[in-house]
Amino acid sequence: IEDRAFQFGDGAYEVCQVRQGALIDATRHLERLERSLAAIRIAPPLARAALLYVLCEVAARNRVRDGLVYVQVSRGAAPRDFPFPADVAPGIVVTARAIDPAVNEARARAGVTVVTLPNQRWARPDIKSLQLLPNVLAKQAAREAGAFEAWLVDSNGYVLEGASSNAWIVSEGGALVSRRADQAILRGVTRATLIDLAADRSLAFEERAFSVDEARRAPEAFLSSATMIALPIVAIDGHSVGAGKPGPIVAALRAHFHRLAERTPC
Amino acid sequence: IEDRAFQFGDGAYEVCQVRQGALIDATRHLERLERSLAAIRIAPPLARAALLYVLCEVAARNRVRDGLVYVQVSRGAAPRDFPFPADVAPGIVVTARAIDPAVNEARARAGVTVVTLPNQRWARPDIKSLQLLPNVLAKQAAREAGAFEAWLVDSNGYVLEGASSNAWIVSEGGALVSRRADQAILRGVTRATLIDLAADRSLAFEERAFSVDEARRAPEAFLSSATMIALPIVAIDGHSVGAGKPGPIVAALRAHFHRLAERTPC
Repeated sequence: IEDRAFQFGDGAYEVCQVRQGALIDATRHLERLERSLAAIRIAPPLARAALLYVLCEVAARNRVRDGLVYVQVSRGAAPRDFPFPADVAPGIVVTARAIDPAVNEARARAGVTVVTLPNQRWARPDIKSLQLLPNVLAKQAAREAGAFEAWLVDSNGYVLEGASSNAWIVSEGGALVSRRADQAILRGVTRATLIDLAADRSLAFEERAFSVDEARRAPEAFLSSATMIALPIVAIDGHSVGAGKPGPIVAALRAHFHRLAERTPC
Repeated sequence: IEDRAFQFGDGAYEVCQVRQGALIDATRHLERLERSLAAIRIAPPLARAALLYVLCEVAARNRVRDGLVYVQVSRGAAPRDFPFPADVAPGIVVTARAIDPAVNEARARAGVTVVTLPNQRWARPDIKSLQLLPNVLAKQAAREAGAFEAWLVDSNGYVLEGASSNAWIVSEGGALVSRRADQAILRGVTRATLIDLAADRSLAFEERAFSVDEARRAPEAFLSSATMIALPIVAIDGHSVGAGKPGPIVAALRAHFHRLAERTPC
């Protein structure tokens, strides 16, 4: 109960897809975990290769062939006080969970809906920290509005990202559009691999902000995350996107994603 | 490890002073806990009278006559997912810790120093939630700069509050000044009792914003919190406040605080 994750949200985490018994994009996830920990000055509890081994073992011993592994690192346990405790080892928790791939396949066929909400997060959501209460409240508000995800919007009406996903649209000209990954959003691992995939398939990619208005008028919109890959968005705040059903570009990204993503068999 | 406090910072807390075997301002602390929980839609785990009994028992059984009791309530434990889990009881943890009153008395005699830092917190620090990583980072930065506390400053140069305390100055005219307690700061329990004390002692009180510049030029500055009551600030960013030593108004507030504060013997 004195773990600083529990009392301060003082830690960082990653969620990595497990697919057919392999970790997906593990190198990028572990790189980002190291970056998050460095930003909040927590020493990595394990070398990258050792942590990769642990993630694989936790997936394998729990017989998770399709699903996710979750890793959380905190600043450690110490009597409650705001400054960093001295001489405390970081805390680490790794869990794995099976998820039936058919669930996300069904979501991808039907498409999902989003609602837009004002961004209420702290100044550094680029750090994948445990400061997630605003994300929890936004996701809950979305679900109560009958939507799958909340898109968080800045004070100028530009879409930042989802409560637990990155936000994308396809422009009128057919380019993929995703906001610049500065300190205001998480630099998604799946987002990065989708950018690689766009290059591989000669799809134009524009890294720029887009407004809620532009997204509503876009031919396609979608979200990306490690567990959902790319999910088509068919309505924003109740307004249909494009033809109101999943479009061809997001379908192609989904179909080809795992040809390009890194695969670490466990 | 699936408690939502641990994975999302999805909970709220209070810290209540224990003094000579009594809880100080317990009613206001428990009212605020109820308000925090209502704001994030967590049902109170216990009725107020029952929780008060638990706080007292935890202090008494741990033989804490001077120190603090800490109570934290989370949304409960459930498989990790952002939306609120269904049918989960809130999690509650109560701890007590002895603190030698001489430590804060020595701080009050010497005065403490603060540094100013940009505010990086989420949009609702009025909710006493576990979203505390920016507070941790600010407090650590203060300590590394040789200061006791960090004052968080808004984009217009106005002081919001400390990383774990409210911020006060004494105006040129001798009035106590504290920022309006809207959604941008915590509505401090000790702050509220100090406002009562000002009225009781016929001290003028101005509830308004003050800038870092005004604070540097003020005759006195101080911070308030449940465990530190009122501590004189003798320097801000290395600039002396007033005569560079604790002033008479904060000393009087400190001396008279416990005559007015609510006392619940355990």
